[in-house]
Amino acid sequence: MQQGDKFKHTFIVSEATYEGFLKTFNDGNPLHTNTEFAVAKGFKSRVMHGNILNGFLSYFIGEGLPTKDVIIHGQQISYNLPVYLNDELKFESEIEAVHESVKVYEFKFYFTNSENKKVAKGKIQIGLI
Amino acid sequence: MQQGDKFKHTFIVSEATYEGFLKTFNDGNPLHTNTEFAVAKGFKSRVMHGNILNGFLSYFIGEGLPTKDVIIHGQQISYNLPVYLNDELKFESEIEAVHESVKVYEFKFYFTNSENKKVAKGKIQIGLI
Repeated sequence: MQQGDKFKHTFIVSEATYEGFLKTFNDGNPLHTNTEFAVAKGFKSRVMHGNILNGFLSYFIGEGLPTKDVIIHGQQISYNLPVYLNDELKFESEIEAVHESVKVYEFKFYFTNSENKKVAKGKIQIGLI
Repeated sequence: MQQGDKFKHTFIVSEATYEGFLKTFNDGNPLHTNTEFAVAKGFKSRVMHGNILNGFLSYFIGEGLPTKDVIIHGQQISYNLPVYLNDELKFESEIEAVHESVKVYEFKFYFTNSENKKVAKGKIQIGLI
């Protein structure tokens, strides 16, 4: 892995993803679970939990890199647009910096929806173990 | 809600939490799923997925505040120490800043384990809707 390396993946916020997240973490806020509430607040429908995207990041780091010998040090994410059930999200990431001596890698990432709009972006720092 | 308001909650990384996260996001990295691998890397046992803590943050924002009329704008987290299965984590958060005119609230948070060590810390920004 080196600076400039790019990675792509497609994630779908499926019914199974949504229900799995809901059941695991019990965040039943009406914005996520009540269509009428979400619509009254100006959204198209129930808004998916932002932290579902962080679960996708876990998969990317744990399973999507050329090595499995990694641990996550930290991450940050900004949510720019709502994500809805069954949205297909294009994930793109790039290694921004490598600190060889301490085996630390910094990634930036974006999630783009099917209308080609960025729904979220952020950074991840990992270390090799 | 106002600056200085503090919140507390206890989260347990139970078998159900771990299995639910694993099944939902399919991050089967050996650090999380293979005890021998994790021990060989210097850990006590399988290390729980860091993003389980972000699921806990979802619950805190969606269910743990005095109002349900909230949406998350962004967050950042640093992982300082490994979390293991069945760890009981004390979550503490405080409102650091309030931007009344745009109804934006900034929180800082910590997760502390049963040995009273900070395992993770970070910030969250939310808006009222």
